[in-house]
Amino acid sequence: MPSGRRGRFAPGTPVLDAARSLGVFVESVCGGRGLCTRCQIELTTGVFAKHGITSQSDHLSEITEAETAFRAKGRLATARRMSCQARVLGDVVIDVPQEASSQRAVVRKRAESRAIDLDPAVRVFTVSVVPPDMDSPSGDLDRLLAAITDQSGLVDLEADFSVLPGLQATLRKSEWNVTTAVSVAGPRPRLIGVWPGTVKRLVGLAVDIGTTTLAAHLVDLVTGRTIATAGTANSQIRFGEDLMSRVSYVMMNEGGEVALTRTVREAIGALAAKATADVGLVPHDILDTVIVGNPVMHHLFLGLSPVELGQAPFALAVSGAVRVPAADVGLNFAPGAEVYIPPCIAGHVGADAAAAILAEGPHRGEELTLLVDIGTNAEIVLGNAGRILAASSPTGPAFEGAEIQCGQRAAPGAIERVRIDRETLEPRISVIGVDAWSDETEFTKKIDTVGVTGICGSGIIEVIAELFLAGVVTRDGVIDGAAASRTTRVFADGRTFSYMLWRGETEIVITQKDIRAIQLAKAALYAGVQLLMDRLGASAVDRIRLAGAFGSYIDPKYAMVLGLIPDCDLGQVKSVGNAAGTGARMALLNLGHRAEIEALVGKIEKVETATEPRFQEHFINAMALPNKHDAFPKLATEITLPAPPESLADTTPKRRRRRQ
Amino acid sequence: MPSGRRGRFAPGTPVLDAARSLGVFVESVCGGRGLCTRCQIELTTGVFAKHGITSQSDHLSEITEAETAFRAKGRLATARRMSCQARVLGDVVIDVPQEASSQRAVVRKRAESRAIDLDPAVRVFTVSVVPPDMDSPSGDLDRLLAAITDQSGLVDLEADFSVLPGLQATLRKSEWNVTTAVSVAGPRPRLIGVWPGTVKRLVGLAVDIGTTTLAAHLVDLVTGRTIATAGTANSQIRFGEDLMSRVSYVMMNEGGEVALTRTVREAIGALAAKATADVGLVPHDILDTVIVGNPVMHHLFLGLSPVELGQAPFALAVSGAVRVPAADVGLNFAPGAEVYIPPCIAGHVGADAAAAILAEGPHRGEELTLLVDIGTNAEIVLGNAGRILAASSPTGPAFEGAEIQCGQRAAPGAIERVRIDRETLEPRISVIGVDAWSDETEFTKKIDTVGVTGICGSGIIEVIAELFLAGVVTRDGVIDGAAASRTTRVFADGRTFSYMLWRGETEIVITQKDIRAIQLAKAALYAGVQLLMDRLGASAVDRIRLAGAFGSYIDPKYAMVLGLIPDCDLGQVKSVGNAAGTGARMALLNLGHRAEIEALVGKIEKVETATEPRFQEHFINAMALPNKHDAFPKLATEITLPAPPESLADTTPKRRRRRQ
Repeated sequence: MPSGRRGRFAPGTPVLDAARSLGVFVESVCGGRGLCTRCQIELTTGVFAKHGITSQSDHLSEITEAETAFRAKGRLATARRMSCQARVLGDVVIDVPQEASSQRAVVRKRAESRAIDLDPAVRVFTVSVVPPDMDSPSGDLDRLLAAITDQSGLVDLEADFSVLPGLQATLRKSEWNVTTAVSVAGPRPRLIGVWPGTVKRLVGLAVDIGTTTLAAHLVDLVTGRTIATAGTANSQIRFGEDLMSRVSYVMMNEGGEVALTRTVREAIGALAAKATADVGLVPHDILDTVIVGNPVMHHLFLGLSPVELGQAPFALAVSGAVRVPAADVGLNFAPGAEVYIPPCIAGHVGADAAAAILAEGPHRGEELTLLVDIGTNAEIVLGNAGRILAASSPTGPAFEGAEIQCGQRAAPGAIERVRIDRETLEPRISVIGVDAWSDETEFTKKIDTVGVTGICGSGIIEVIAELFLAGVVTRDGVIDGAAASRTTRVFADGRTFSYMLWRGETEIVITQKDIRAIQLAKAALYAGVQLLMDRLGASAVDRIRLAGAFGSYIDPKYAMVLGLIPDCDLGQVKSVGNAAGTGARMALLNLGHRAEIEALVGKIEKVETATEPRFQEHFINAMALPNKHDAFPKLATEITLPAPPESLADTTPKRRRRRQ
Repeated sequence: MPSGRRGRFAPGTPVLDAARSLGVFVESVCGGRGLCTRCQIELTTGVFAKHGITSQSDHLSEITEAETAFRAKGRLATARRMSCQARVLGDVVIDVPQEASSQRAVVRKRAESRAIDLDPAVRVFTVSVVPPDMDSPSGDLDRLLAAITDQSGLVDLEADFSVLPGLQATLRKSEWNVTTAVSVAGPRPRLIGVWPGTVKRLVGLAVDIGTTTLAAHLVDLVTGRTIATAGTANSQIRFGEDLMSRVSYVMMNEGGEVALTRTVREAIGALAAKATADVGLVPHDILDTVIVGNPVMHHLFLGLSPVELGQAPFALAVSGAVRVPAADVGLNFAPGAEVYIPPCIAGHVGADAAAAILAEGPHRGEELTLLVDIGTNAEIVLGNAGRILAASSPTGPAFEGAEIQCGQRAAPGAIERVRIDRETLEPRISVIGVDAWSDETEFTKKIDTVGVTGICGSGIIEVIAELFLAGVVTRDGVIDGAAASRTTRVFADGRTFSYMLWRGETEIVITQKDIRAIQLAKAALYAGVQLLMDRLGASAVDRIRLAGAFGSYIDPKYAMVLGLIPDCDLGQVKSVGNAAGTGARMALLNLGHRAEIEALVGKIEKVETATEPRFQEHFINAMALPNKHDAFPKLATEITLPAPPESLADTTPKRRRRRQ
């Protein structure tokens, strides 16, 4: 963390080496010899548990002599480890405090990607102001602005009104030497903060408002480093789990957006308080903010009714980038601080997608890149430097465990990994909160404290893919009753068959209806992708980037077995974690990135799946596993796929209700 | 009103003719034949009483048949008269509702001055917006801005955040036809208001914050007309009568500026409520505001401590023009509305002086113009198109009736005019609230109801000037004891002599000390003027403009007899009323005027009287009546001045405490 990258390593691998093999940059001046303390990391607990990993302190090797010595000298905090000293012994979630990721004025998102050059909207200047003189009676502010112009070359400065009331006292207290913050986000440079003497740390906040979770990164605007990160559940959930139910809430409750707006603003305020407290600051210190979210979150955060987003033609109140005083959107940050929100692409493709594009940069290369952010809606971007298309496809909530009989959100107790023996059809599972496969003794020891409570999105994908690969599920998605003769786990369940995945206090059953739900969801996703490929005249893609929580945790191989994504060299399929959050940090740290995405969004071709006739055709064709017409030649080199079915007649879907 | 011009007319003069002879433009289409109803005026009562005039309905001729007919038709409100029908029978204060002053898109400040061309900061456009379309999914706001650009040619528009929440509903309710208000005051055009359909009347407010009184003019931004005017006392008076005592209050009460700020903002809010209610609007309809005031009022309105203004080097917190959201300064006007405050010239010469310069335009001609705004401080501007100087001179409050034994503010019962018989030395007086001289029977009839309570500023000036012209006061300002032999009104009063001006229930006495106070005040004023003349190398001025309440009501002849102002052709000395308020209206109606005064203020040379060695010399020389060295040749052609004194030794002043 915060990159979200993960991998498996031999026990005893130093964390520093593991980080490097994942492409996570951790600075080390001494070359891993335990001399420089630059490579500090933290073991993280609690908040990441729902992603399937719990951290335990005994999963890292014990404190070394080198670390003990640095702790005594005060150079290594109790919560910290040196990543060259700490070795991985079990599953861990490691937080890389961003001061460890770079000492340069550059933040590496990850090793193989572009660095973020520092060119923030808020700049800092320490200046000496000419004291007042009766013979040239300009005001204190006017002389301060002149001093900033002299030093910075910024002309035609204006001042945010908030700097005025304390200005005269500050100038005199500091004997006319002050640190100033100037926002260059608008058409004129704007003085937004003045502090006596020299102030070192001025911070901004990058926030990703997800339907389910909110994440915030506190960034040092001088060094570019991320100095704190905080996350929380989106408490709008009490108004509806998915976006459409929240829009319905507003439709049915006059002024209902007020409660939803207050909820999300309060959540951001709480995140800001948490992140700033971690580094001894307060939200009032936050000088600039970038917020991204899907269109409904975007509107609700801004206090705009999302009702128009719930019905054709899905009109956004505003599509362009928004700059607004933080105080006007209920954020008690620094007076004069603004919030920047990147443009939305369309009524279903929001500022979060714009930020993800900024982070993944399909427009920066010649390779045809498919960027998919899978949530309740899948946001799909396809293109390269020449042309970019975007669409939103109504996958529904099945990928998130909803509409699945034993489905649940990713949380302790949820099955997240499944392997099925091709001969015996016996499953092995792994469960969030238990760090072992079910056939390991470790699992038996620990499962009672966690329990097996359901199956989450990645588990659903794996179990269906494994059943398909084992021949239990046919190419047209039917649980084959013939398999019942091979195992009692396959059993008649009314007019169809089900598969008993887990027999415990809770029985976890995969039903025919579950598979249909996943087929519908994956067909919607794939049809959206295919529509964009048609438009571009592309028969294949060069690279696939899976973003968002679901996209980050599914195994690309299983996604491809089920046909969620088109055929592609598996080495070119990558999970990129919270790409929207990365894009938000980029927009926070570099004004050029704001201009880049604003210019790009105007050129992105929006494809409306709801009105495109071929969408339905693609949808039907994509119901099969992996899908009807496609060969998956690249996948086939790794996995033997079952033969195609004789008929797909019974899989023709009804037109689905659009859900957000 | 609202021009503040006044004059004397033969009883029976039609108000329309009186207005025209004063240069007040009242529209009349029928040529005064009682046919068009365009020349409507109102008789004003109450609020203007303190300026020395009370209005009584029987001071206008009775309602005519023509007026009765129009009232029956609803074309003439009960409170209104037609100025061609109503004739002046006695003292009246007439309000010219500004719809009567022009039907054109031009406001005449007064007939002989420039018209104010309409180029307001807030402009109105009625536009049709392209409805949303799924294939080009731009936001509603984005399409609205594009429509405004199409119609107005304004590019790179941004929107005030406040227009967003109601926008989608407004566009749909109005079927995509809306009226919009765009502010072009800043670097980018800014949409600040959207209303369904066509809106006719959009208004702005011009406010002059005086130390004693506040005045507000509500202006129609489409027609340029002033549609309502309101005034009130500055209730900051409870924190101190003059500026310095209010600064002292803040110095002695930590955070004391908060109470003073709240008071003045509430007063402006109340004025806005009153002015808008007069025309069926509310303060929320006010889209733009210009506020002027002296530096202390300026700072207190903005919520800035005035403490630095009370001590050398009299540093302003801000001298440049200020644009600030109205909401940020506690004004509950239209969301998105701003307040514009013209620049201050120096620590003692404020935005009100800048506005007065804008109104009187010394910089627009070749004649050397002296503009004097006399309050507790006198703000003095001297110059022409080539060069302009400004100074503030500490006259103290004597001109306002303070520091005078029987002095009082201008209010009913105050003596405001005095004539002294050159032979008998018997006085005639006129009193505010009684419309006759004291030797008229009318006076005797009415004086008991009003009483004679004291003497106000203009009365003080006249009595001293008359005593000087009658030879009772010598050229060096001494009440000559020899006069006691000619009249009992001159009497020994301790070691000096006094003059009994009025013997009634209250005795009104003019003492030697009173004369000294006026000498000090007028010497300070004159020394300031002389300092500026020295700087310019000018020996005379071409025109004199007297602004502000005191400047408007003193008789220029008596001002010159006492040497308040330099020698000048009396025909070139004019009272210009509330020039600062006029300048505020100009800045409200024309952006070019904002640029004009901002550019000009940067070029105005500030002369600091407090540190200028020659000020003291001029001050001493100016103690005499009219003053020591000067001949007043132009004045002498009208009035025989007494011979110069032999010595001025006893008039050497102590260094005066600077008062604001």
